[in-house]
Amino acid sequence: MLGLDISERMLSKAKELSVDSTIVYRLEDLEQLELSPNTYDLAYSSLTLHYIERLSQLLKTIYQSLKSGGHFIFSSEHPIYTAPMEPGWSVAKDGRKSWPINNYQTEGRRVTDWLVKGVVKQHRTLGTYLNMLIKQGFIIKHVEEWGPTRQEIIENPSLDEEIERPMILLVSIQKPDRK
Amino acid sequence: MLGLDISERMLSKAKELSVDSTIVYRLEDLEQLELSPNTYDLAYSSLTLHYIERLSQLLKTIYQSLKSGGHFIFSSEHPIYTAPMEPGWSVAKDGRKSWPINNYQTEGRRVTDWLVKGVVKQHRTLGTYLNMLIKQGFIIKHVEEWGPTRQEIIENPSLDEEIERPMILLVSIQKPDRK
Repeated sequence: MLGLDISERMLSKAKELSVDSTIVYRLEDLEQLELSPNTYDLAYSSLTLHYIERLSQLLKTIYQSLKSGGHFIFSSEHPIYTAPMEPGWSVAKDGRKSWPINNYQTEGRRVTDWLVKGVVKQHRTLGTYLNMLIKQGFIIKHVEEWGPTRQEIIENPSLDEEIERPMILLVSIQKPDRK
Repeated sequence: MLGLDISERMLSKAKELSVDSTIVYRLEDLEQLELSPNTYDLAYSSLTLHYIERLSQLLKTIYQSLKSGGHFIFSSEHPIYTAPMEPGWSVAKDGRKSWPINNYQTEGRRVTDWLVKGVVKQHRTLGTYLNMLIKQGFIIKHVEEWGPTRQEIIENPSLDEEIERPMILLVSIQKPDRK
């Protein structure tokens, strides 16, 4: 098992929290990643792909590193969430929230403030994500535009606004099984 | 070749415009459609599926009616377009248009006025469309969230606003080839 991050501090934190001493942690920039081919059963990426500029190169690397029939699962910020140039809620007089979308078709750089100022993201349409995966040879298995259940809202009322628009996209894909 | 519509007048118009006398036109309600199995090479549906309540039943009928390796291509209103309870542009002081989204996760009935008052549509998330197709056995080949090219906007300036959010979804899927 191989764990990758671009941050030394995140890797230290991961090692500290880890319960499995066989996990190898490695400092890597996913823009430059190289992996040995036909090696892994599963690749998993959490909320990172919307930062990657050379995404098709990374998808190629992941595809080649998977064994036949291997899976790739990732979450990213949803294109509805990354599209607006100045993202934010609009609140009507009755308190009802909406998420104004613009520039959905204009892919590329978005700059927002999150923890620090000037965080750079890459907006891509949902079609672009899926078609890049299909072009690479992956089979689309499941597309989840995450939203909270009623029970989750009861337990955590601030999740309520997530009913209005998806913030997170989760995709499950597979390398064809040629065995 | 078989052409279906629920409207007698649309079928008359189709026959009138038709250049191929071998096309069979039939009055059908897609909510109740039956087709002979393993018969067709291609199914095509234009801007209709967002009206269908029993969509998984219809997808099953289409899947079964296709030959091995047969294709299904459809357009529908995009979930970003069907989500809001009261759809419409919001215009900022600088004239910039946005499309406020709400209730994206609340699937089901939407009532809007289009040609006549009180047109009923069914909102589904993009994930739901794709997962229904995958569950039925289809392979996702291409997902297009249509937007205009620069050239198309030059030729037809009113298409400009379509940059801000997709109105139309086009999906190309295939029944696995078991030959």
